[in-house]
Amino acid sequence: MSSKKEVRVGLIQMTCAEDAEVNLQRSIANVREAAKAGAQVICLQEVFNVQYPCQTEDHANFELAETIPGPSTTAMAAIAKELGVVIVVPVFEKRTHGLYHNSAVVIDADGQTAGLYRKMHIPDDPLYYEKFYFTPGDRGFLAFNTRFAKVGVCICWDQWYPEAARLTAMQGAELLFYPTAIGWIPGEKDVYGASQYSAWQTMIRSHSIANGVFTGAPNRVGVEGAIQFWGGSFMADPYGNVMAQSPHEGENQLVVTCDLSLINTARTHWPFFRDRRIDAFADLQKRWCEQ
Amino acid sequence: MSSKKEVRVGLIQMTCAEDAEVNLQRSIANVREAAKAGAQVICLQEVFNVQYPCQTEDHANFELAETIPGPSTTAMAAIAKELGVVIVVPVFEKRTHGLYHNSAVVIDADGQTAGLYRKMHIPDDPLYYEKFYFTPGDRGFLAFNTRFAKVGVCICWDQWYPEAARLTAMQGAELLFYPTAIGWIPGEKDVYGASQYSAWQTMIRSHSIANGVFTGAPNRVGVEGAIQFWGGSFMADPYGNVMAQSPHEGENQLVVTCDLSLINTARTHWPFFRDRRIDAFADLQKRWCEQ
Repeated sequence: MSSKKEVRVGLIQMTCAEDAEVNLQRSIANVREAAKAGAQVICLQEVFNVQYPCQTEDHANFELAETIPGPSTTAMAAIAKELGVVIVVPVFEKRTHGLYHNSAVVIDADGQTAGLYRKMHIPDDPLYYEKFYFTPGDRGFLAFNTRFAKVGVCICWDQWYPEAARLTAMQGAELLFYPTAIGWIPGEKDVYGASQYSAWQTMIRSHSIANGVFTGAPNRVGVEGAIQFWGGSFMADPYGNVMAQSPHEGENQLVVTCDLSLINTARTHWPFFRDRRIDAFADLQKRWCEQ
Repeated sequence: MSSKKEVRVGLIQMTCAEDAEVNLQRSIANVREAAKAGAQVICLQEVFNVQYPCQTEDHANFELAETIPGPSTTAMAAIAKELGVVIVVPVFEKRTHGLYHNSAVVIDADGQTAGLYRKMHIPDDPLYYEKFYFTPGDRGFLAFNTRFAKVGVCICWDQWYPEAARLTAMQGAELLFYPTAIGWIPGEKDVYGASQYSAWQTMIRSHSIANGVFTGAPNRVGVEGAIQFWGGSFMADPYGNVMAQSPHEGENQLVVTCDLSLINTARTHWPFFRDRRIDAFADLQKRWCEQ
């Protein structure tokens, strides 16, 4: 068997105040704490420094967006360099006037940008009016070399799409992150809450299993408007085992040791990539197969 | 909301003796029991009437195969017609001399053949030397109209491939069956057993969630040679909730009421098909994305 290749991964689960600067400073404090606990690759939650802006269609919310590079990524690049850690920084990106994305910048441990992913699958549901705000990503599914691991990022709604995980894994991702802002509607929680959380976690665990990669999902926590973000951030190994999980309430830094050599072990014993029937997958590019 | 459209589904979990005729007769008895409990669509386990033939590479085992139509499918067609039930009959198919498949015939409630699926993804692992026996299917991923529901079938190893589930769902499958022969190696079970079962169930549940369909996995049970087949057959709803699950030991008919109108409800509230980035999926037809 290959020798161990251990990487400490940190997932930051946070509440957000109205003031983006407050959120940025608290995020930095959380990153420092995670690094102190040994984290080398740290992932923040979706649109990490603002309250989730999509509960209504409000033009004023576009002012929460920032450019890349911009204040958040510049601040995080300095911290990454200072601490020698990789940071995944998901931001509400203003690309130009009238063109916004839900994005994530991967900052390498020297403070340089390793890559930029723009969320490909954009939801539009009551209280999650993201199609109003975010243009779907135009860069495809990506993984980026960093000092400690090859890092792939998908964002929230992407989690429901096995195609996204597959294509990111096929780019060589070892750590596949899902920065997320998902929660319960309090009126539904008693009936559907456990099932909804389970479906979310099950999908992401399935991406670990199908692709033999580590998955890590840092999720927002706390009540904003009509949503109770359910926290419950977690890390799964390449067999889909949940390695650690944050509570459903309260801020949390989850720091987990991931032995990247397990990817080789898992794929040797479960060689799913060997057998994919790529000759029969053309219809995956269809919307539906009409009967 | 749409009104209910209830279908009773039966999953037959069996041990297999050496004598195929004994297994056929016991399967028929199990089908009768399930039908008596109200089952309208009944799925048997993978290569249902023989002991799992792939633990060694033994040319003599090809004699266990049968043609389609052949003794098993003819017998099951008569039972389907008599009882007015749909039966999914997975057989070790001899297509011609030297050409074998791991197949499943869907027999409609009038005894007519609704369709034939041939397992697309063929494993080859210690104790599961299927590539020696089975040519990969050449019919693609399919779903078939039956009296009670549109039925899709994938077989065992297919379960690890989200592409297979997606393409079958895109053919219109409402019930997606995974006849299976999966088990523990007794020496590994204490350490890996729970994780392995969980990975198996998690993948199939994820297919329910991602595609908004019912999944049903009837699995073999009992010890044959070096494998302890883990039973644990289960049915999941379009949200991935496990509706019912068989024990890990002993024969079992799991009969579950599936309200097919939940497919519409689930896909309305979780409209994942709406947003698939089919413009970005071309690389799914690649083996790997070289770096």
